[in-house]
Amino acid sequence: MIKRIGILTSGGDAPGMNAAIRAIVLTASVSNIDVIGFHHGFNGLLESDYQRLLPQHVAHIIHQGGTMLKSARCAQLHTAEGARQAATVLEELELDALIVIGGDGSFRGALAIANYYQGQIMGIPGTIDNDIDGTDFTIGFATAIDTALDTIDKIRDTAEAFERIFLIELMGRHSGYISLSAGIAAGAEQIICPEFGILQPHNIKALLAPIQRAQLMRGSSSYIIVVAENSYPAGTSALAEKISEALGIECRACILGHIQRGGSPVGADRILATKLGAFAVEQLLDGAHLMMAGEVHQKPVLYPLINTGEKKKQLDPYLVRWQQNIASD
Amino acid sequence: MIKRIGILTSGGDAPGMNAAIRAIVLTASVSNIDVIGFHHGFNGLLESDYQRLLPQHVAHIIHQGGTMLKSARCAQLHTAEGARQAATVLEELELDALIVIGGDGSFRGALAIANYYQGQIMGIPGTIDNDIDGTDFTIGFATAIDTALDTIDKIRDTAEAFERIFLIELMGRHSGYISLSAGIAAGAEQIICPEFGILQPHNIKALLAPIQRAQLMRGSSSYIIVVAENSYPAGTSALAEKISEALGIECRACILGHIQRGGSPVGADRILATKLGAFAVEQLLDGAHLMMAGEVHQKPVLYPLINTGEKKKQLDPYLVRWQQNIASD
Amino acid sequence: MIKRIGILTSGGDAPGMNAAIRAIVLTASVSNIDVIGFHHGFNGLLESDYQRLLPQHVAHIIHQGGTMLKSARCAQLHTAEGARQAATVLEELELDALIVIGGDGSFRGALAIANYYQGQIMGIPGTIDNDIDGTDFTIGFATAIDTALDTIDKIRDTAEAFERIFLIELMGRHSGYISLSAGIAAGAEQIICPEFGILQPHNIKALLAPIQRAQLMRGSSSYIIVVAENSYPAGTSALAEKISEALGIECRACILGHIQRGGSPVGADRILATKLGAFAVEQLLDGAHLMMAGEVHQKPVLYPLINTGEKKKQLDPYLVRWQQNIASD
Amino acid sequence: MIKRIGILTSGGDAPGMNAAIRAIVLTASVSNIDVIGFHHGFNGLLESDYQRLLPQHVAHIIHQGGTMLKSARCAQLHTAEGARQAATVLEELELDALIVIGGDGSFRGALAIANYYQGQIMGIPGTIDNDIDGTDFTIGFATAIDTALDTIDKIRDTAEAFERIFLIELMGRHSGYISLSAGIAAGAEQIICPEFGILQPHNIKALLAPIQRAQLMRGSSSYIIVVAENSYPAGTSALAEKISEALGIECRACILGHIQRGGSPVGADRILATKLGAFAVEQLLDGAHLMMAGEVHQKPVLYPLINTGEKKKQLDPYLVRWQQNIASD
Repeated sequence: MIKRIGILTSGGDAPGMNAAIRAIVLTASVSNIDVIGFHHGFNGLLESDYQRLLPQHVAHIIHQGGTMLKSARCAQLHTAEGARQAATVLEELELDALIVIGGDGSFRGALAIANYYQGQIMGIPGTIDNDIDGTDFTIGFATAIDTALDTIDKIRDTAEAFERIFLIELMGRHSGYISLSAGIAAGAEQIICPEFGILQPHNIKALLAPIQRAQLMRGSSSYIIVVAENSYPAGTSALAEKISEALGIECRACILGHIQRGGSPVGADRILATKLGAFAVEQLLDGAHLMMAGEVHQKPVLYPLINTGEKKKQLDPYLVRWQQNIASD
Repeated sequence: MIKRIGILTSGGDAPGMNAAIRAIVLTASVSNIDVIGFHHGFNGLLESDYQRLLPQHVAHIIHQGGTMLKSARCAQLHTAEGARQAATVLEELELDALIVIGGDGSFRGALAIANYYQGQIMGIPGTIDNDIDGTDFTIGFATAIDTALDTIDKIRDTAEAFERIFLIELMGRHSGYISLSAGIAAGAEQIICPEFGILQPHNIKALLAPIQRAQLMRGSSSYIIVVAENSYPAGTSALAEKISEALGIECRACILGHIQRGGSPVGADRILATKLGAFAVEQLLDGAHLMMAGEVHQKPVLYPLINTGEKKKQLDPYLVRWQQNIASD
Repeated sequence: MIKRIGILTSGGDAPGMNAAIRAIVLTASVSNIDVIGFHHGFNGLLESDYQRLLPQHVAHIIHQGGTMLKSARCAQLHTAEGARQAATVLEELELDALIVIGGDGSFRGALAIANYYQGQIMGIPGTIDNDIDGTDFTIGFATAIDTALDTIDKIRDTAEAFERIFLIELMGRHSGYISLSAGIAAGAEQIICPEFGILQPHNIKALLAPIQRAQLMRGSSSYIIVVAENSYPAGTSALAEKISEALGIECRACILGHIQRGGSPVGADRILATKLGAFAVEQLLDGAHLMMAGEVHQKPVLYPLINTGEKKKQLDPYLVRWQQNIASD
Repeated sequence: MIKRIGILTSGGDAPGMNAAIRAIVLTASVSNIDVIGFHHGFNGLLESDYQRLLPQHVAHIIHQGGTMLKSARCAQLHTAEGARQAATVLEELELDALIVIGGDGSFRGALAIANYYQGQIMGIPGTIDNDIDGTDFTIGFATAIDTALDTIDKIRDTAEAFERIFLIELMGRHSGYISLSAGIAAGAEQIICPEFGILQPHNIKALLAPIQRAQLMRGSSSYIIVVAENSYPAGTSALAEKISEALGIECRACILGHIQRGGSPVGADRILATKLGAFAVEQLLDGAHLMMAGEVHQKPVLYPLINTGEKKKQLDPYLVRWQQNIASD
């Protein structure tokens, strides 16, 4: 029987992590389960740095960006020694279960601990990248789209006013999820993702042709290209220069960077996080172990933690095809 | 073969309608199909008030609230005479198909026209209420949630500062979709929806008990109740007075009203609208008739127009149960 | 010499109050002055309910709406007994000065305490109404304008889409400052303020004529009237009905209410609050007493507390004249 | 007597330019003056590329970022030949006056035309940089602050969650106005402006000491430094690396770039733009020539165009001193 749960947030922070923490604490409270939160991801676990979490501690965090428990990466955990040490702390604190909110790297850390720990382990997918198998969406993704969108809308204003080409680089490590979604939503003229093949200097012509057509035929005055990070080996700024040279038109790069991680979570992320946090606690009570709490077709589901990074989550094929048709029109 | 399509937006406007118009026009353009847009919903159809829609007309509307074609309700259409007249105009303008973007009332209008019109008819669900069967979400719903949320977050600030109870009335006609979602996302202490039964003056005690408990036990300083419109016969302001009297604490009502319809659409609505607009055109080309373009499990689907208002779309049972557990804790 | 300062926020909360608290604490810290903050306005002072405020307590509040110290009205203070009791607490806590952040009612409270208290008293104008003499702007006013604006822009979307008349009621007690500013900024077709005379049912014609002209001559599709609260004795909803009847066009009222008090403060309010909070502490160190820290022509200034409610602050005569010319064009 | 006015927007676009265009058109309309708008700044003037501007054309632009007339820089104008050509077009179009909305470069262009043109010339300060003498604020500055602020608040979320140092580079060419204001409003730990002296690699220690102190003494978890562009010769990214190396803590640079130019203007910019646009027309009617319409102490004023770039506008000395005291505490 579960009496005491530990939770932590790990890896890159994502908007909605606080909403997940809140849901865990409120749900546990209904079942009289204690919750403690480790600080700074797995580091806080290794160093026994934690706080007790009562409903009043999470009363006004649902709308806040970041994570009240702080996050961090933790190299030490990926050694057998580190994982064993983490398990020891969990046992000493008499924790019956550990919930890890983070991405696939964080889930690997949780799996490593499971080799030495008797309690139950549960993951909750919290990352803006939406690159975790077993859930339709990850916590933070919807907010990252809207944050990017807000920025692209602003750049559209100035691009329109000045008749410029803009490259806007969005996050996503090796996934084009954010770029495809934000690009479609912003009405970007082109979208460049790793999934479409890494762009090379000698392939740049395919990129240029639609720009030239747009300028000749439609008299359009702004042209926005959304570029997922890691799509052009020399970097997005270099790509902008390349385009400027090739076309003789001013082309500027805007690297969005960490802005995309922050901000108050949008409704979709708060609801998803609330659902997954609540479901994680309920499923631990039902005996779940080494599972991730995800959402598929709007229903909460369990998915084996070990499989979460297995396949490469596919971009929406309908949107990919449509965007490519339109871009080349 | 389709050469020419008419489109219109009808009923209450919803953020994302412009994105749907844009997607229709761009998709039609790829297939060399002409598009004309009627103004003011079915009124423009009855009065032959329309404009041609080329890609340049929709180049910068994806981010705009409202609808560039204007919307309206149209009593005349619901007579046989009106429907026949609409069909006549469609034939005269040599339109091979009509796409109606709106809610179930608008779809009934489209079905009425079909009795007299030889061309194809397609619906796209555009309403903030999310009360249409055959699609997981309607265009405008996601934005309405975030608009409501933004407001509730602001009221939380002042409720916290002043230690007050607030009732916040959200839209939804006879559906609690907006209220449940916005209420969960805002961390509302209670949510009142028609689906939970219409509240009557003599039932008010069940509402009061958790407020009193919250005040005694948690020392909470603000208390927010989200109320779907039409949940209390005498109106939300009357309910607020009732609560004030019963508890001797200041309780204020805030009726959100039409704010919820406006604003730049969020990413989710722009993407959904783009998908459904594109899919509607493609399916018309494939011969679809009397169908609605919806999205289920992230895939575009067709659903018979006639069934869109048949069943009462259910609230997420998981969230309903969780909210009720937490609220009564 | 000042060693210890008490602060409190009182009356209606205003965005930026937290930024003022932060500036007071940081500025005091540089001079090694202790700061304690009373909770719930003067109530916390009467009941010795307070907390010490160190720089770490205010490290992340500058962007938060509401007030971390909570606010309240306090009837008890307006009795001689209450004022004497407040002075006693201040002496017992060995406070050399008291800073009151609030509006003119709060300043009257501070003046009442001064009859019995040996220490220095300073006011900082914090109210969204901008109705305090001796300062160009009050803390919270700029944010309230932008919050109102955001809402009016959203209603414009739906008013445009549906071709409706909207009355939007904004706060301001007996001052039209918010309504004039938000109305001009929103491009409202008309603005109704108490300063222009209280509107009576028999005077309504002057209001109707420009609406009719707009409809006939410009073919405008939306018409927005910003109404300051207390401008029409029977209330804004009654006015909307009156207009609907008179013109036979749908006219809806939207009462903005407490939304206007909340939200993260805009830059202008954070800067003003920072400046006034810092200046208040510096001037206390220089011996100022019974003064308000205000800003005139972008410079921090002192103004006698007793005069802050004396004259009625005038609306910008240039904007008033321009708006009236345009509205009647 | 003035019958016909030409207007254009020039140089970097700024939020609020559309509000100024609207006010000019509405004010001119009241006096039955025709207005034509040139496209793409002075280029449209040189090429006779323009449109007539009637009230209905500006009915819904007050809230839009960018400029409906487009902007551009125009090298040709800075030759005697170009200026003469511009004057010729103005005479041919029988324009009695020209209003130029832009920054000091645009005003120099206007002055060059005045050498050959018989009509009246008026400038309106539109630039986010707030670096124009003769007006307290330029159109676009207030919005740029809030846009920057919104971004810094988001980065603060992730900086807090991950305990990082962030350098955030803001615009301003050679003026620290945006950086000082946004930095104060964001509660930035440090602010680096050209006005404080250009930072050199060997001077970096003064920057590092407070960071180290903050880490040791306050246990702060995020540290944000706002950097005006052109403050460090090798660029802000190089500065971030330098700090990382020196302290052994991750330090990231975020270059905000063109985002700062876009977005719907905030209330303050819409009001300022409305006031200056209206005033410019009125003063032209009164015979003003070679003047800029500015605002000083909330009153509209005229200021000789020739002097607008003369002195270097000073940062607010009170805020500069306060920030430096606090940063080094």
